[in-house]
Amino acid sequence: MKRNLVIAGTNDVSNEIAKSIANSLSADICNPIYKTFPDGESYVRIPCNIKGNRAIVVQSLIYPQDKSIIETILLGDAIKELGAEDQVLVSPYLAYSRQDRVFLEGEPISIRSVLNMFKEYYNMLFTIEIHKEESLKYFGKLSINIRPYTYMAEKIGFKNKNVAVLSPDAGAIDRAKSLSSYLNCDYDYFIKSRDRVTGEITMQPKELDVRGRDIIIIDDIISTGGTILKASQILKSQGAGKIYVMVSHAILLNNAEEKLISSGIEKIYAANTLPKKDKVYYIDVGPLIANNLAAYLN
Amino acid sequence: MKRNLVIAGTNDVSNEIAKSIANSLSADICNPIYKTFPDGESYVRIPCNIKGNRAIVVQSLIYPQDKSIIETILLGDAIKELGAEDQVLVSPYLAYSRQDRVFLEGEPISIRSVLNMFKEYYNMLFTIEIHKEESLKYFGKLSINIRPYTYMAEKIGFKNKNVAVLSPDAGAIDRAKSLSSYLNCDYDYFIKSRDRVTGEITMQPKELDVRGRDIIIIDDIISTGGTILKASQILKSQGAGKIYVMVSHAILLNNAEEKLISSGIEKIYAANTLPKKDKVYYIDVGPLIANNLAAYLN
Repeated sequence: MKRNLVIAGTNDVSNEIAKSIANSLSADICNPIYKTFPDGESYVRIPCNIKGNRAIVVQSLIYPQDKSIIETILLGDAIKELGAEDQVLVSPYLAYSRQDRVFLEGEPISIRSVLNMFKEYYNMLFTIEIHKEESLKYFGKLSINIRPYTYMAEKIGFKNKNVAVLSPDAGAIDRAKSLSSYLNCDYDYFIKSRDRVTGEITMQPKELDVRGRDIIIIDDIISTGGTILKASQILKSQGAGKIYVMVSHAILLNNAEEKLISSGIEKIYAANTLPKKDKVYYIDVGPLIANNLAAYLN
Repeated sequence: MKRNLVIAGTNDVSNEIAKSIANSLSADICNPIYKTFPDGESYVRIPCNIKGNRAIVVQSLIYPQDKSIIETILLGDAIKELGAEDQVLVSPYLAYSRQDRVFLEGEPISIRSVLNMFKEYYNMLFTIEIHKEESLKYFGKLSINIRPYTYMAEKIGFKNKNVAVLSPDAGAIDRAKSLSSYLNCDYDYFIKSRDRVTGEITMQPKELDVRGRDIIIIDDIISTGGTILKASQILKSQGAGKIYVMVSHAILLNNAEEKLISSGIEKIYAANTLPKKDKVYYIDVGPLIANNLAAYLN
């Protein structure tokens, strides 16, 4: 009988999620040998019984992203060589997903390149909240984009609280709508406008009256945190109550989390798809991924 | 009419060879924009007129190798998007070429993975002395392995000198034979033996009497330089004259070149496929690559 074997990826983040998935699925876990040769080349070896079984590689594409990607390919090659029956990739954070189109002539569609490489080695892909779901078409096989927000809200205990959900822009309103539907609360998005005199960009909730209300700002990726910082300042100035941030991928460059917390944000909640930062509360999405895996694998 | 456009790769090594190739071919050179985003993702953009032309990407896969590989893929994606007629890859140094088989069960064939990625984006591949020529089958399209030794020997002026060529092992004897045939001199290889008492490995020329003769040790890659060091010591002890080292890819970890020169090696000659080291003499293989390109492209 075909067994599920969870292969822990090359970094701590992937390792933690892999353990959690294996645990939820009651599957065996395989810990490959990873090393870097003195000249910088990556090395992987999978000392596990893969033949005839389903290999589920868990690899979040964290920094250094290019090394994470190549290691994912090397794992795929090794697993194929060992005779796996099925090669499933769980990549909680897909690097390069923001370069999903040609913004300036002469650019690549980087996420297309990455998924194109993976499809040679994997026949199913599971990810947490890719920047644009349409990008998954580049994988060309079964791919599942998992939205973690209701799961996270449940774990946090946001249900039946007097909150409203705000998306930083109109384009991502769907995300806010879906969470608000679970929480049975209001939702809205920020509209941005440019001051004709100063050129400064201001933003404010389109319609929602935030006075005295706790707000959840929801986003897929926070990188520098600039938009969220501005949003939080506006909400505070309009008399909002507590402000929470809920995000799938908390990159938080240059200690952005410090600035956000200093600006009066109550708590930042993130999925555990990227390296941990102090002052951020992480929700383990391993069980959520395992549920999705269980629904598709049998 | 289809023009040749040489696209300079992401590192100084590739840049230098690209210029040299463009010069030899009288082709235009295109300098892409390269940057790394604050989170570590690579970015490329090709601001050149590629449509309907032949793009020749020159990218040596130097450290950090995985970043070099991903950038090669991103360049391939961008060039395809721009509508290149032909996509040619010149990769003077192909990283991962030493992991060309499964040495221990559970390992990938890394060079297969790399060439497998490239074949999605490039329809011809030119490289300088890949570790094992058979590995090029993984590219699956036209691929040319360029041996640079006679070209280098000509540039150095080894012709009509009283030299002999030695290969560090029997497996690479073909390399020594081919150079010696050009130089019209003797060749041999080192045999290795293990001392039954001490366990120490010794090596010596199989048959060649090296007394008073200048020797060229020839190899494809020098990494730590351990074998070459031992070879040079044996040759000195047997009364050899000047000892030269000629190598395609001089990795030379941990200042290996210092140790080699200190051991009495006269000069180390290398192709310019990797970052430069003091005390190593580099021969620009750009014109040699250009000759090979000219033979296949028209």
